[in-house]
Amino acid sequence: MEKLSKGLNVIRKLSAVTPWPVSVTPMSAESDGTHGFWPAGFSAGAVSAAIRYERKDLMLLVADAPASAAALFTTNLCCAAPVTLSRKHLQCSPSSIRAIVCNSGNANAATGEKGMDDSRAMAQAVARELLIRPEEVLVASTGVIGQLLPMERVLGAISILPSALQRESGIDAAQAIMTTDTFPKFFTLELQLSGGTVRLSGIAKGSGMICPNMATMLAILATDASIAPALLQKALKGANRKSFNAITVDGDTSTNDMVSILASGTGPVIMAESKDFSLFCEALEALMTFLAKLIVIDGEGATKLVTITVEGAVDDRDAELAARTIAQSSLVKTAIHGEDPNWGRIVAAAGRSGAFFHQEELELHFDNLSLLKPGFIANYSETAASEIMAKESYTITLRLGSGPGQATVWSCDLSKEYVDINGSYRS
Amino acid sequence: MEKLSKGLNVIRKLSAVTPWPVSVTPMSAESDGTHGFWPAGFSAGAVSAAIRYERKDLMLLVADAPASAAALFTTNLCCAAPVTLSRKHLQCSPSSIRAIVCNSGNANAATGEKGMDDSRAMAQAVARELLIRPEEVLVASTGVIGQLLPMERVLGAISILPSALQRESGIDAAQAIMTTDTFPKFFTLELQLSGGTVRLSGIAKGSGMICPNMATMLAILATDASIAPALLQKALKGANRKSFNAITVDGDTSTNDMVSILASGTGPVIMAESKDFSLFCEALEALMTFLAKLIVIDGEGATKLVTITVEGAVDDRDAELAARTIAQSSLVKTAIHGEDPNWGRIVAAAGRSGAFFHQEELELHFDNLSLLKPGFIANYSETAASEIMAKESYTITLRLGSGPGQATVWSCDLSKEYVDINGSYRS
Repeated sequence: MEKLSKGLNVIRKLSAVTPWPVSVTPMSAESDGTHGFWPAGFSAGAVSAAIRYERKDLMLLVADAPASAAALFTTNLCCAAPVTLSRKHLQCSPSSIRAIVCNSGNANAATGEKGMDDSRAMAQAVARELLIRPEEVLVASTGVIGQLLPMERVLGAISILPSALQRESGIDAAQAIMTTDTFPKFFTLELQLSGGTVRLSGIAKGSGMICPNMATMLAILATDASIAPALLQKALKGANRKSFNAITVDGDTSTNDMVSILASGTGPVIMAESKDFSLFCEALEALMTFLAKLIVIDGEGATKLVTITVEGAVDDRDAELAARTIAQSSLVKTAIHGEDPNWGRIVAAAGRSGAFFHQEELELHFDNLSLLKPGFIANYSETAASEIMAKESYTITLRLGSGPGQATVWSCDLSKEYVDINGSYRS
Repeated sequence: MEKLSKGLNVIRKLSAVTPWPVSVTPMSAESDGTHGFWPAGFSAGAVSAAIRYERKDLMLLVADAPASAAALFTTNLCCAAPVTLSRKHLQCSPSSIRAIVCNSGNANAATGEKGMDDSRAMAQAVARELLIRPEEVLVASTGVIGQLLPMERVLGAISILPSALQRESGIDAAQAIMTTDTFPKFFTLELQLSGGTVRLSGIAKGSGMICPNMATMLAILATDASIAPALLQKALKGANRKSFNAITVDGDTSTNDMVSILASGTGPVIMAESKDFSLFCEALEALMTFLAKLIVIDGEGATKLVTITVEGAVDDRDAELAARTIAQSSLVKTAIHGEDPNWGRIVAAAGRSGAFFHQEELELHFDNLSLLKPGFIANYSETAASEIMAKESYTITLRLGSGPGQATVWSCDLSKEYVDINGSYRS
């Protein structure tokens, strides 16, 4: 409970400093009832299947009626069984997904044919309970790779899930998908459209194996908007690029990454190329970026949320290359952790990133403090730089030249706790 | 002195288990006099310029007569002033390099025009002392980025360097180029050619910012062979690909990487496309691989030397992609450190590497222990796997399929000491 209130506190603080779009009203779980409301047309529940943790580790999100669905999946060639299955189900019935079931503690990845059977069995069990077709169920798993799910316990837990369903269950659901996360990540926002208010809610988990490469962790989103699957997919893909794809904890991309969204259609209709669609996209990106930042803040062993912006690149792709290389550099991350303004590591990471620039033109800022002017003129107060680095959150801005390319990624520091957590996570 | 004897012990042990080419006789510093002999035609010396360390931090290698030279430089766009200068000098006079001067403690990187002036001043000072042209001097620096060299102390130290020159100075020279290395890396081997015996000696430093991307650290090599500069460059480039380019400590590529070799020409002549040239290339690769492994063993905070071999890939490039991604994964490196046979992280790293394969075909071995058969059939003893991982050195072999592609890289573990060293290196 202490961790939960600490987590809610982090969420409240981040929400307060987030530049939300004007049409959006942010609602933390607290401002939204104590346990987090889903949009109209949805309920969720969580129970314990004792897969790896004592706590609730299996969650189910249910749409009262067939929902539009969209999802993005990992690009890792070693994708997990639930990813393969969900991809197939989404192709079969994008306008009629009824449920998403997700377990933590075991990724059901690298589990061969038996793993595929197990994922199918999870979908079938959910379908049986809800009297729907298995193709209407998406399955997600997160946790250790290469171990078979304890299917007896999983199926037993699924049979009691329907009795746990309720609308005010966001935090419960967020908790059930956690692995090494230290707090549940649930958030809701409301959006004013021409046809009325739309609600967007989502849960996410991250912590390790986070890297900007397609969908980079698990996120399950829901909205009451009425929107066609293809349009929903377009909105999700666009929002993902600048949110979940722009964070990095350790440069590893998981076998199980999946970002999914269901739209119940009980709320206002959103048409293609409308002003409402633009507002919806903007709100979705805002929600996803917010959840993405929560993942970085809660990165394994992380103590800092650092925004890394690269400007003046030849194009956006070059800017992204440089920003990601800086964000993923172990030397930069340890310097951030040690609060050491060792800017040489930042320019060295940019130099090997593959992005083009002339080193004489580099300019570097920490927040508003100029550290480096063109020609490597470093004339700044070490005290001022250290003061910025002592903060929990600040921005590193590297200007490569005078090109139009720009990119922003969020990163955390690399601490000894990361090594502790990952040296012993499985055993 | 305790560290030195520990280091000599590491070198002796590694030499004993290294599969040396048949034509080669390895000679550690001990088998070669106490302090390490350079090939005929060379002398070296080291003094203290108190740049950052109390110990000797400035070394000079001198050829008695004009030597053939070859070198490989960092591909980092933020290359340091000495790299820019040495590249130019090598272009000007590849068949008449007379000296290499190298300091530790300060990289003279990201130092703008003043940094270039300082590198030139170092070459000029050496030239003045040795009565040669500045273009006959290569300059190398290693250490902190973004600070100007204390030139008064550097030039003062250069003026006393000539009196320190002697042939039995390999370890002294190796010590002077160390930064966070814990022991000096010097090694010699002798090679039987048709025209007689050739000697190859080299020093190297590594420790942080080591990544397989062109020349990846500092190495200064010397031989008494008589070989044309173009042929020497060809041999160096070929040997580098499978030695210094195949190691990784933390995935960062430095601004100052440089691998250089001088050939005094007092020994046997080596002609292009001869059997002797093949033997020379093989011996050079063996020496460079040996020094490369010493760098990994002495990686910042490292406690393990792990050989990562990828086989059965579509081609060598794909195999290299997969091997390097595995070797650089923080999750794999922490699992190696924790001695946890968490093979899921290895296949997940391969899966995101960009190398092509079908996950059902993957096979994994730790030394001779099979962990994974096709179809993700993992049927092995955890105890046996843990026993292998408890060793200081072992091999991870991942077979992707049935293609001809193969690659080997060497990596170390990621420990809390790495974070300690790099959180505070500069300050």
